[in-house]
Amino acid sequence: MRLLEEKIRSEGHVLPGNILKVDGFLNQQIDIDLLDAMGREFAALFQGTRVTKILTVEASGIALACITARHLGNVPVIFGKKHKTLNRDESVYSTPIFSFTHHTSYDVTVAKRLLLPGDRVLIIDDFLADGKAVRGMMDLIAQAGARLTGVGIAIEKGFQGGGDKLRAEGVPVHSLAIIDEMNGEEIRFRPQP
Amino acid sequence: MRLLEEKIRSEGHVLPGNILKVDGFLNQQIDIDLLDAMGREFAALFQGTRVTKILTVEASGIALACITARHLGNVPVIFGKKHKTLNRDESVYSTPIFSFTHHTSYDVTVAKRLLLPGDRVLIIDDFLADGKAVRGMMDLIAQAGARLTGVGIAIEKGFQGGGDKLRAEGVPVHSLAIIDEMNGEEIRFRPQP
Repeated sequence: MRLLEEKIRSEGHVLPGNILKVDGFLNQQIDIDLLDAMGREFAALFQGTRVTKILTVEASGIALACITARHLGNVPVIFGKKHKTLNRDESVYSTPIFSFTHHTSYDVTVAKRLLLPGDRVLIIDDFLADGKAVRGMMDLIAQAGARLTGVGIAIEKGFQGGGDKLRAEGVPVHSLAIIDEMNGEEIRFRPQP
Repeated sequence: MRLLEEKIRSEGHVLPGNILKVDGFLNQQIDIDLLDAMGREFAALFQGTRVTKILTVEASGIALACITARHLGNVPVIFGKKHKTLNRDESVYSTPIFSFTHHTSYDVTVAKRLLLPGDRVLIIDDFLADGKAVRGMMDLIAQAGARLTGVGIAIEKGFQGGGDKLRAEGVPVHSLAIIDEMNGEEIRFRPQP
C-alpha cells in the first residue's frame, strides 16, 4: 500500500535491534486518515470471506481492527487482554505470546462466551515480525473451535520470516507494507501486486 | 444517550465492588454500530471547540477515541501508555494514575513531541469513576502547555462523584450515560437533556 510505505519512509525511524518506531502515526499517535485508508484496504482484501468477528490484541491493534470493522459491515471486534501472570480463569481461552518488542511473555486471554464455534474470524494487527502474536491468536481461535478466515497486518518485517512461514503453511496473510530490509534509515519494501 | 443506556441495561452486569462489566460491547468485544453512534454523539457535543488532538489512555479508550476522531474531521488521536514502573525518560511527559478497577497505580506517558503547546485537546475515555484517569490526562496536557477543550466519557459512575467534582471546577465533562445508582442488577441513570 503506497500511502503506508510513504508514511513509513517519511516518518518512521529505525532504532538499534531492528525496532521500527512508528509512534508518530500508528503506535502512540494515530493518523486517522491513514487508519481509515488501511481499514478500507483490509475490507477490500477480505470481503467475500464472510467474516463474523475481528480478533486483535490490546493495545495498538484495536484502532485498526475497529476501523476495518466499520468497512466490513460493522462486525464486532474482540481484543485479547494481556496478563503478565498465567491466567487460570475457567471462563477464558488463554495462550502465551512472546513479545519481540518487550522481550517478555504475556498470557493473552479472550472470554469464552465471546468467541464461538460458528465464528469466522479475521485477525488484524499492526505488526508482524516472527509471527508469535498471530500464532497465539490462531491458537485462541482453534481453542474456540472457530475458523480463521485471514490475517491482515499493517507492517510486516519480512526479513524476520514470520509472515512467509505462515503463508507456506497456507494461512492467508495480507500485509499492507512488507519490509524486506532495514539498514539504518534505509528501508526496502517488498514489491506487491 | 438512550442507545447506550439500553445496552448497559440489557447486556451489562453489576459485579461485587461496584464493578460494571460491559465486556460484551465495550471493554473486550466492541459493538461497532454502538461505537460509531457514540463517536457521532461526541463529535456533535464538541464540534465548535476547535479540537486539534484527541487524548486517551490505552487500551479500551482507543476505539472510542479513533471513531470520534473520524467524526471530528480526522484529528489525530494520541494514547497514553501505561507503565508499571516509574518512567524517567526525558522525552516523555509522565503522570501517575491509580486504577480503580485494578487497584494499582500506573505511570502513564506521552511522547513530548506529540503533545504541543498550541494543541487544543479533547479527552475521550470509556469510563469515569473517581476521575483519576481524567485528572492524569489533564496533568499531561498541562505539562505540555496545551489546552483542554473538553472531556467525553462513555459511562460515568455518577455515584462515585469524580465527574461532578470536575464539573464543579469548570471542566466541561460530557458523559453519554451517567449511573447514579447500581444495586445488584438494578441500574438507575441520571436524566440528561
